[in-house]
Amino acid sequence: MPSVTLKMIAKELSLSVATVSKALANSYEISDATKNIVLEAARKMGYIANPYASSLRKRRSKTVAVVIPEIADSFFAKVINGIEEVALFYGYHVLIYMTHESLSREQAIMQDFRSGRVDGILMSVSEQTDTVDHIKAVMDSNTPVVFFDRVREELPTTCIVTNDFESAFAATSHLISKNCRKIAFVGNSPALAINRNRESGYKAALKEHQITYENVLICGNDPENDYTILASLFRSDYRPDGIILSVEKLIQLLYQVCHDLNVNIPGQLKVLTFTNFAMAGFLNPPLSTINQPAYEIGKVAAQTLFKKLARTNHISEAESIVLPSEIIFRESSN
Amino acid sequence: MPSVTLKMIAKELSLSVATVSKALANSYEISDATKNIVLEAARKMGYIANPYASSLRKRRSKTVAVVIPEIADSFFAKVINGIEEVALFYGYHVLIYMTHESLSREQAIMQDFRSGRVDGILMSVSEQTDTVDHIKAVMDSNTPVVFFDRVREELPTTCIVTNDFESAFAATSHLISKNCRKIAFVGNSPALAINRNRESGYKAALKEHQITYENVLICGNDPENDYTILASLFRSDYRPDGIILSVEKLIQLLYQVCHDLNVNIPGQLKVLTFTNFAMAGFLNPPLSTINQPAYEIGKVAAQTLFKKLARTNHISEAESIVLPSEIIFRESSN
Repeated sequence: MPSVTLKMIAKELSLSVATVSKALANSYEISDATKNIVLEAARKMGYIANPYASSLRKRRSKTVAVVIPEIADSFFAKVINGIEEVALFYGYHVLIYMTHESLSREQAIMQDFRSGRVDGILMSVSEQTDTVDHIKAVMDSNTPVVFFDRVREELPTTCIVTNDFESAFAATSHLISKNCRKIAFVGNSPALAINRNRESGYKAALKEHQITYENVLICGNDPENDYTILASLFRSDYRPDGIILSVEKLIQLLYQVCHDLNVNIPGQLKVLTFTNFAMAGFLNPPLSTINQPAYEIGKVAAQTLFKKLARTNHISEAESIVLPSEIIFRESSN
Repeated sequence: MPSVTLKMIAKELSLSVATVSKALANSYEISDATKNIVLEAARKMGYIANPYASSLRKRRSKTVAVVIPEIADSFFAKVINGIEEVALFYGYHVLIYMTHESLSREQAIMQDFRSGRVDGILMSVSEQTDTVDHIKAVMDSNTPVVFFDRVREELPTTCIVTNDFESAFAATSHLISKNCRKIAFVGNSPALAINRNRESGYKAALKEHQITYENVLICGNDPENDYTILASLFRSDYRPDGIILSVEKLIQLLYQVCHDLNVNIPGQLKVLTFTNFAMAGFLNPPLSTINQPAYEIGKVAAQTLFKKLARTNHISEAESIVLPSEIIFRESSN
């Protein structure tokens, strides 16, 4: 198969080669509408941008890094697929680094980037990350960083997020509308903005409905301990009749606990969780979920990073791009 | 926290520093039993091997690559966790590269490795991979490659596999014992040895029970097309009463097809699939699965690679290490 050229794309779209070239180089001379048409055609036709022929030419590694806590999570897997689609278009490699929720590993990885191993970084911070010095040092060494999902908003760069507060608010309000009056919220690290935003959304919904029962649990990385925490929930007088899970990997534990303790879902406990897990609709019972636009988050994060890479100056400001989530109501919350 | 030294490990185990050092260097002077005790203690205590103080010192990148088809798969996610545990111990980074089942992407990635970007490679080939020239070229450039799961046995290196033939044979025999007489097998690429081995195991079990019904389907990467293939299975006279799925991502499609066409599992169709998917026991109905030792496969593959990296010469022979899978029988096949 011959490689796709700018000329071929121009012919296909009845545009000039110069327009196609400028559109692909993200020139201010070209409208966003035209850019989108050109990008879409280039993608469909399998065009591979040659970084040595573009403003990316000064970049050495042709590589971007994705730094995430873990990959055994359908959200991150989908984000990476979105990132890969964009990176492939620019002829870039994507390298995936896992922090395993450890700040010291995250620091070691960022230290490694200061040698210029990668041209840019897409990042979702660890549960332990309570400082940004290690990230700032990389940004100061002229390697742009774009955050997604688990962001640090105090740094002068772009954060791609979803509407966590509103989603948790809507999820909690839904459980209240299904007559739940004792709703628990299970999150992971209070250090993470996404977790704090979801917890705030949960609390705001309780407040709006003047419900005083409030029960926030923190589950971490130890399945045995998490099992104990969830099980004790149903052995106490403070037993909930509804639960919002903020962590995908806890779904299995919650279903296990309910199975072991004969807690009927949704009869005795209504459940709604944050996840993009494909099999949610085939669980017993089918699980109500808050689906984040994971693939889109990955795409937008990567597009943002490549825009930064193509720029000659690196003056960057803190900004957020919010892509809304969607709640899918199934039997577990009915 | 002060870093853990050889001396601290030696004290903890009441061994000499020399013994601990040799055990960690995988010396022939030390027994396997002692090596395991030392490795386990080193891991628990958080010891980070300093590659500059070991025989890895000549290696430049302190990085190993994992080349896999995709990450949205619980098998590969668990393999990577096993690899990471070992790599962390040696103070190495793990970089993950995805081929998205494309030979040309796999070739581009391997080309990139010839510049010495990584010290060693752990690899599961793409569905399209019908040549090994691109892999051999990297091995010839003195970068060791270890295969796992999707292997190419013709190259002079180590392949870490599971007992695919035996697992498919046992799974098929189980369905026959449950009175299935029309069992279909759904695989992906016939180019992959694991798929061929599973198909052979399926056929051998049919032959042993003198069952003439044989129905092998190939499903690929296009969910719409796969849905059509699976749905047409139940609209034909050749309709099966049992099915072995060889591809994790098809579970959702199969459950969807059975839901849409009112095919009762296990009443009208008994199902058994290859997967390490954590929620299998909570599906409706709970799914019988062939669980591969994914984490162990990752660990052994990484240990094998680090042994190769520590060696001064690179004379290597073709060998296979087989770690057995386990079948978990649940309601879907009962």
